[in-house]
Amino acid sequence: MAEQPHTVVIVGGGFGGLAAAKALRNAPVRVFLIDRSNHHLFQPLLYQVATAVLGSGQIASPIRNILRDQSNVTVLMGEVSGVNKEARQVFVSDVDRKEVPVSYDSLILATGAHHSYFGHDEFERYAPGLKSLADAVAVRNKILKAFEQAEAEEDPSRHRDLLTFVLVGAGPTGVEMAAAIATLIRNSLKSDFRRIDPTSARVVLVDRSKRILGSFSENLSEAANERLKSLGVEILLERGVDEIDEDGVIVAGERIASKTVIWTAGVTPSPAGKWLEVETDHAGRVRILGDLTVPGHPEVFVVGDTASLDQDGKPLPGVAQVAMQQGKYAGKLIHRRLSGEPPPRPFRYFDKGSMAVVGKSFAILQSGKVAISGFLAWMAWAAIHLEFLAQSSLRVSVFVQWVWTYMTEQRGSRIIVDHHTTPAPETATKPATEAPAPVANR
Amino acid sequence: MAEQPHTVVIVGGGFGGLAAAKALRNAPVRVFLIDRSNHHLFQPLLYQVATAVLGSGQIASPIRNILRDQSNVTVLMGEVSGVNKEARQVFVSDVDRKEVPVSYDSLILATGAHHSYFGHDEFERYAPGLKSLADAVAVRNKILKAFEQAEAEEDPSRHRDLLTFVLVGAGPTGVEMAAAIATLIRNSLKSDFRRIDPTSARVVLVDRSKRILGSFSENLSEAANERLKSLGVEILLERGVDEIDEDGVIVAGERIASKTVIWTAGVTPSPAGKWLEVETDHAGRVRILGDLTVPGHPEVFVVGDTASLDQDGKPLPGVAQVAMQQGKYAGKLIHRRLSGEPPPRPFRYFDKGSMAVVGKSFAILQSGKVAISGFLAWMAWAAIHLEFLAQSSLRVSVFVQWVWTYMTEQRGSRIIVDHHTTPAPETATKPATEAPAPVANR
Repeated sequence: MAEQPHTVVIVGGGFGGLAAAKALRNAPVRVFLIDRSNHHLFQPLLYQVATAVLGSGQIASPIRNILRDQSNVTVLMGEVSGVNKEARQVFVSDVDRKEVPVSYDSLILATGAHHSYFGHDEFERYAPGLKSLADAVAVRNKILKAFEQAEAEEDPSRHRDLLTFVLVGAGPTGVEMAAAIATLIRNSLKSDFRRIDPTSARVVLVDRSKRILGSFSENLSEAANERLKSLGVEILLERGVDEIDEDGVIVAGERIASKTVIWTAGVTPSPAGKWLEVETDHAGRVRILGDLTVPGHPEVFVVGDTASLDQDGKPLPGVAQVAMQQGKYAGKLIHRRLSGEPPPRPFRYFDKGSMAVVGKSFAILQSGKVAISGFLAWMAWAAIHLEFLAQSSLRVSVFVQWVWTYMTEQRGSRIIVDHHTTPAPETATKPATEAPAPVANR
Repeated sequence: MAEQPHTVVIVGGGFGGLAAAKALRNAPVRVFLIDRSNHHLFQPLLYQVATAVLGSGQIASPIRNILRDQSNVTVLMGEVSGVNKEARQVFVSDVDRKEVPVSYDSLILATGAHHSYFGHDEFERYAPGLKSLADAVAVRNKILKAFEQAEAEEDPSRHRDLLTFVLVGAGPTGVEMAAAIATLIRNSLKSDFRRIDPTSARVVLVDRSKRILGSFSENLSEAANERLKSLGVEILLERGVDEIDEDGVIVAGERIASKTVIWTAGVTPSPAGKWLEVETDHAGRVRILGDLTVPGHPEVFVVGDTASLDQDGKPLPGVAQVAMQQGKYAGKLIHRRLSGEPPPRPFRYFDKGSMAVVGKSFAILQSGKVAISGFLAWMAWAAIHLEFLAQSSLRVSVFVQWVWTYMTEQRGSRIIVDHHTTPAPETATKPATEAPAPVANR
């Protein structure tokens, strides 16, 4: 058999993993990209699926489709359960739940983070988070069902509790969700219900910090705060959530009755640190060196939300831009090594800026010394997000949907996809050996 | 209290129920439309969701949104569990599973049908049917996972079993699914996989009747048969399915190994007959009079797939057109009664024709004496289906998607939406009383 090419295994098809795979396009390597989903998810727009603006297929593309023209990549759907650093193998459970080892010469772990309840996992049952498409569909079902339930309730005094939406965590996702729910209630739904008075609904945003959107400048945070208030969102700051149960939340000792609590308060990294048995930071992220490898294992890279790297004395934030730049760096470094070129300079994150949308026609944008809020920032937000959507087809359909939603105030995906229990056939059914009754099948 | 207006309860938001509600637009009535889904589903395009062409939101609209401008209609999401004819009440379980009675003066049951395994309910576990959006998403997951599993399998000899798709039932849904899967394999997926040879895949269509599409003329059935063969579909006729298990199907004593079996063989009506305790036909459908009411209860109408009515000595087929025309008739009749007008002539179905799509650019169309097949029929099919999509917004997005799929051979919704088990946090998590580590939440 011919000599096997250098094998790079990338775990995770998010922003980091995908950037790494693309950076290896012209490298003399064989790449295996492993993800437990079949799709790359454009997480910054996940809140729009949760609030019924976009459909699932509009913010997700099959990973193998994105990489179909890159013939050195094989995409495998499977869940990684561990790594053997010495044998240079990752363990993958495939669709059929068989565990198979996959050998590597270089490994890039880009396994991201999931939402964390900070020791209160019992909250999850009542307050879903928002990291995957399934999460977004579950949150959307929950929101839409609250309205259905209120409409079915003849006693108007009960509408308020049913239509109280509580968001725990005032980071970008919490703020964007709060504004999107407020807009949904006041614009999209106004003429669809007969018994609900939309003004009776409450949207409450809770955070233990002093201000919303702590990663932005104080001015922008204040602008977003004003905007949220004008949309009717109640903002409760410097207050922690003591309890979440089926009747609502207890915030700083006070109960808020709510059937719809959504958790956007924080994330926990993937168990990459445990797989590798290496040092992690206080949040559980793998401490990496300036070349993004783990100490003592120059062939093992960790990038994105699951990695911990300080720059100028501060840890890099868990945002898409960091993951993309780190993934690209790791891919290029492997290519250089194989070409015998000298190692590049240590990784440095270039902050292109960050933004958050607060309802219709309003966003905040911070990039270096530029800080703007309002319509212009919103236009920039829309342009940049369309630009980044991985596939051109997604771009067209998202654009059409946005324009339509903007003009009509309607939302395109107000669909509760639920498994009904099929009732047991109530009539005597035919035995299979008899021809079925001639009932056309649709 | 002022005199209550005449109350019409419509159960079911499919083609029949929606047509009935619309026909009551100008009637002096209060209408309650009850459905266990929040959406009206455009079932004729359900196979396109199952084969990843369209997304769920593209063929479904919220019922309350469709009827938002009709102020005499209140839409309620809930599941009907029974009817008391004497007290004139239906029993509805709402989102919260409370059962409440809803009183009516007139009742229209348009509760449709669901797929039936003809006494072999154990087949359902291995061979899902296709009636709801959740069904379509489950079938899509199953098909896409089969490809993922085959790609993960290094031994090519196992690919054939993994990539054998069996469709039980050669009615319109079975035929359209078979063609769509064959096209998916041969066109859309060809460059996305590294280990799978698409030509090794099999699509098998099984039916116990003598020919496919028995409701069409022999010529059209033959044309569709030829087309399916040219797409590589194997057609097994006059053979029954003896067994379905996790390894495949046994057809006329012979085992076909398959991981993906889909059931499109037949349907069973809703339990409306049992609720009403009235006479049903051999298939379990409620026998109705020429004015679509049940004998002895002129205030109770049954329409669509769950009703049984003969015309010219033959039972009316279970198709959307019948349901729509019957729903409209029932609504108008109620309006006439309240206006004191004489009863209309008995219901007569006007058959506008039927069609089925067989892959790209090919359909068959039968309308009266007109019987055409090929590209022209396909253009007609596309135009008519776009016309019928309930909401204009759906129309735009479906049209964009179709044109794009047609030109690029790509599919827009190749997304497996699955609930991953969130791994237990592997690192010590913070107690809720401490501030969480400053990890930005996306």
